[in-house]
Amino acid sequence: MANAYFDEYENLEIHELMLKDRPRQEAYYNAILGNKDLFKDKIVMDVGAGTGILSAFCAKAGARLVYAVEASNVATKVALDLIEDNGLTNVVKVIQSRVEEFVLPAEAEKVDIIVSEWMGFYLLHEGMLDSVLLARDKFLKEGGLLFPSECTIFVAPCSVPSLFDDWHNVDGIKMDTFARKLRTQKSSRPEITHLNPQDLLHEGVVFHWMNLLDVEASDLDSIQFKEVITAQKAGNHQGFCIWFDVRFPGEEFVLSTSPLSPPTHWKQCVVVLPEESCENLEEKSPIAFQITMKRSAADMRKYNLEVDLLDPNTEEHPVPCSCHMTKCILTEAHLKMMDTS
Amino acid sequence: MANAYFDEYENLEIHELMLKDRPRQEAYYNAILGNKDLFKDKIVMDVGAGTGILSAFCAKAGARLVYAVEASNVATKVALDLIEDNGLTNVVKVIQSRVEEFVLPAEAEKVDIIVSEWMGFYLLHEGMLDSVLLARDKFLKEGGLLFPSECTIFVAPCSVPSLFDDWHNVDGIKMDTFARKLRTQKSSRPEITHLNPQDLLHEGVVFHWMNLLDVEASDLDSIQFKEVITAQKAGNHQGFCIWFDVRFPGEEFVLSTSPLSPPTHWKQCVVVLPEESCENLEEKSPIAFQITMKRSAADMRKYNLEVDLLDPNTEEHPVPCSCHMTKCILTEAHLKMMDTS
Repeated sequence: MANAYFDEYENLEIHELMLKDRPRQEAYYNAILGNKDLFKDKIVMDVGAGTGILSAFCAKAGARLVYAVEASNVATKVALDLIEDNGLTNVVKVIQSRVEEFVLPAEAEKVDIIVSEWMGFYLLHEGMLDSVLLARDKFLKEGGLLFPSECTIFVAPCSVPSLFDDWHNVDGIKMDTFARKLRTQKSSRPEITHLNPQDLLHEGVVFHWMNLLDVEASDLDSIQFKEVITAQKAGNHQGFCIWFDVRFPGEEFVLSTSPLSPPTHWKQCVVVLPEESCENLEEKSPIAFQITMKRSAADMRKYNLEVDLLDPNTEEHPVPCSCHMTKCILTEAHLKMMDTS
Repeated sequence: MANAYFDEYENLEIHELMLKDRPRQEAYYNAILGNKDLFKDKIVMDVGAGTGILSAFCAKAGARLVYAVEASNVATKVALDLIEDNGLTNVVKVIQSRVEEFVLPAEAEKVDIIVSEWMGFYLLHEGMLDSVLLARDKFLKEGGLLFPSECTIFVAPCSVPSLFDDWHNVDGIKMDTFARKLRTQKSSRPEITHLNPQDLLHEGVVFHWMNLLDVEASDLDSIQFKEVITAQKAGNHQGFCIWFDVRFPGEEFVLSTSPLSPPTHWKQCVVVLPEESCENLEEKSPIAFQITMKRSAADMRKYNLEVDLLDPNTEEHPVPCSCHMTKCILTEAHLKMMDTS
């Protein structure tokens, strides 16, 4: 299982896809080369270095030594040449190894900075963050930095016209039955797609936030979030859209995979509701739900995403709540009254 | 082998991709519903009917009877429902069968029109045209119509920056070695990609044209074309771009997959040259080549694409030829002189 994961990265087309993802490239470029003061004369480890491009950025930012650790054969097939072609062999050491098996040279210092592009679909798919945390515990100096340093997962209720409404009328032909069967075929996994921002029924709430300096691998086994939110516009509630952003230390740069940001190869992750749970909502309708991201028992690198729709009549709403339910309108009026009294 | 082909079409995501291809949908919609006079009271056969949408178009255009012949289980899984949901069961008969095994009901008339969306990458990939020709010979009345009725394959020399120049400088890093290895990895098949029109070095010449009423399956075994063309702009000659268009009878509608047309799921097909054959060309440079599309012996549904670069000094140029070689400039001057004398 583990080897199959690294074998995938021997396919250079995966690296092509990532290298052509401009928001990804620009975020790391800016975070590293826009923070030269943080990198100057420092020792860096690049976990899952791939083609070695981030290691090269670090060297150009002034790092004294970069360990480019990559488990797949791309290390020797590509990264070695890349470092040599760019005249960086004095700084960047390419090591083909899983980071779990890597050991620093005898008497070598720990590293000042760990750089890694470990994010998968809906942030945690691929489970590569575990390796970064292990590297942090094993190789990062006290007070060292992680690039990125924090990450946030967002969730928002949404319409999914590409799997529902688009099929009511395809050039004059009703294709709802096709759509139903298409959804059934796809229902075993969430839909990785570019959601049109206008299909969001809410700007999104924070589902989970992590400071990578203090999160533990076991914290990643299961993430749960329960909330009542209020539809900010009317529309067909057919799914939940999940995206993430990551932030870097120093001069602040953000890599966002929001539907409102320029598209990335991560797209967004949409959990599609079963047809009987879909609902045409008015603006200000309350949506009560619980979402769980749980590591798969069968494959550590995968997660099961589960959404439970809850009853807004029995769930506790935030205070104040802008939804149209009587109790919330009354509470809001009461709070306003107290505020002005 | 044959079954694997039909199994692929049991994946509804393939149909989703095709149905969301607007130029494809619009071309068939216009060709069928924009030619109601041709369809009124006619008997139609839809070869490889898939979800049944083209059969439904034919019924809406006034056909008396439509045989929707589809070998994959999409026939019963999707097409039957689609026809029923649209109230067309009286007209459209869905038949799960390979067209090769289909027989008309006893004493039934032959068909007036055969409709089919059989085109694959670079037109002939998938080899589905063979089935359409067989259906034509077996089921089409004398004087019947084929939708589409003719098709043209084009070829043009081009630059391929996505596999060459884009990698000279990736955010300040030289990645030419990566690009070389990426090309090697991809070299076993042509690149299916959206070519930027500005990367064409020539508007394209007709590589092959077929009238589907009189082409024979054996004509599809090997197609060859030899030409000397003149670069219409300067640029790096790194490949040949291949695309096609198909035309329909009646009120003329064209489905074009040219880099200059709106993008389709067929994209374009680019045969990438080995690095040592790439050349930085001036405007008016002659490009002599021979291109061969030959059915694979191992798999009837696939083709081998081969391009041979020839020597423009020894190949015969067209007369007149606008290239910058002395003999062509002299010939052109001579022709002009004769013209004005």
